[in-house]
Amino acid sequence: MKLFITLSYLGTDFCGYQAQKDKRTVQSELNRASFELFGYECDITGCSRTDSGVHANMFCATVTRKDSQSILTELSSDKIPMALNAHLPPDISVFDAEFKDDDFHPRYDVKYKEYIYRIYNSRLRSPFEEGRAWQVPYSFTDFDIERMDKASKLFVGKHNFEAFMAQGSNVESTVRNIVHASVERQGDIITFRVSADGFLYNMVRILTGTLVDVGRGKISPDEIEDIILSCDRARAGATAPAHGLYLNKVVY
Amino acid sequence: MKLFITLSYLGTDFCGYQAQKDKRTVQSELNRASFELFGYECDITGCSRTDSGVHANMFCATVTRKDSQSILTELSSDKIPMALNAHLPPDISVFDAEFKDDDFHPRYDVKYKEYIYRIYNSRLRSPFEEGRAWQVPYSFTDFDIERMDKASKLFVGKHNFEAFMAQGSNVESTVRNIVHASVERQGDIITFRVSADGFLYNMVRILTGTLVDVGRGKISPDEIEDIILSCDRARAGATAPAHGLYLNKVVY
Repeated sequence: MKLFITLSYLGTDFCGYQAQKDKRTVQSELNRASFELFGYECDITGCSRTDSGVHANMFCATVTRKDSQSILTELSSDKIPMALNAHLPPDISVFDAEFKDDDFHPRYDVKYKEYIYRIYNSRLRSPFEEGRAWQVPYSFTDFDIERMDKASKLFVGKHNFEAFMAQGSNVESTVRNIVHASVERQGDIITFRVSADGFLYNMVRILTGTLVDVGRGKISPDEIEDIILSCDRARAGATAPAHGLYLNKVVY
Repeated sequence: MKLFITLSYLGTDFCGYQAQKDKRTVQSELNRASFELFGYECDITGCSRTDSGVHANMFCATVTRKDSQSILTELSSDKIPMALNAHLPPDISVFDAEFKDDDFHPRYDVKYKEYIYRIYNSRLRSPFEEGRAWQVPYSFTDFDIERMDKASKLFVGKHNFEAFMAQGSNVESTVRNIVHASVERQGDIITFRVSADGFLYNMVRILTGTLVDVGRGKISPDEIEDIILSCDRARAGATAPAHGLYLNKVVY
């Protein structure tokens, strides 16, 4: 049996999800907390990797014993979140736990993931959005959210998204299937929401940078199809900063 | 002429508003930033004091020269917020500035202030609400928001609020006029909103603690009038923690 946990974290003070020597990461915190709670060395396998500064409203991982034995605990699964949290720092919170069969894999078994990207649309910064949204200073009238939403729909479908991948990334296929994309404003906050079966490196951040160019009139929605077909990173927008990005949902 | 500024701040890393020797406070940051921007020593007078950990969505202050001369600057008032922010840390943001006559006083001229108190109603903590809301673990069904809202209305009016003042406080009068009070739920977040011509020390936090006791059935709304009339601090609820409190609006 594998322990399957669902958690959230504020990415600000983490050097990303994945364990790195002498760096504060989400994985290494989960590793330490599991050892402290269960009393044996554990492997933590995440549903995804997130970069430094990226947040997760929902992140999934399995906890397995390093010696391959089953996780055995006297705790019922509904008690585990609070028990793990007692060993975790306040910027991580486990909110669900259940036991899964050994053949379950938290990354390969993902059906789709949803990310949101939060833009704080204001000329002046906000102490409350610092590190939690990308401040974009264009005035409401110069920044066309409907246009962005319309353009986002053109990402939907099974496409080669190479134009929206960080250069130098190495993957077998750059084809992904986006099943939903939308842009909405609520006051000062603009939210880009995108779901897909998988994402290329920096893909959501480059999609966001491209949509911001659409919003301020630098790119026309009509160009989106061409940009996708070009497979040319230089034709898409800039990579939006990490701190506006949230892994929001993981569906198995 | 006095410079009148409107700002917001995240209280987490401040030892409150008021300057104290060797402590990081909002007032001392404003002091330093004004000196750096204008080139002369300034006095900062706030609309209120906030305790360590308390936030402000809106806070007002005047900036005057220590030598009593008029603030003179080549900057037009609409340029001042961004210019001051360049000298301020990211947890303070000035969002408006205007010039006022010398007889204007940022504290005495306040007509009313609105505070909000944010409760995070969940059994499990949230990395995103850490330091920004008070986590209250009662289940939704055990925690009656309508009852809290009903009870909050009984605070409205001109009353002696001595029962809701931190013991040991020293003020001429403990009578205050609450003009609005309400409790609302949006998902996990419960917001208590209260406006008055002034507040006693810890008053909003004690009102909140009392309303939480109402929500979980420890105090009946029928008792509120009695508690007010008793002037007995021991009959009101506990003082809710500072980090859920926000100065939200200041009206002159």
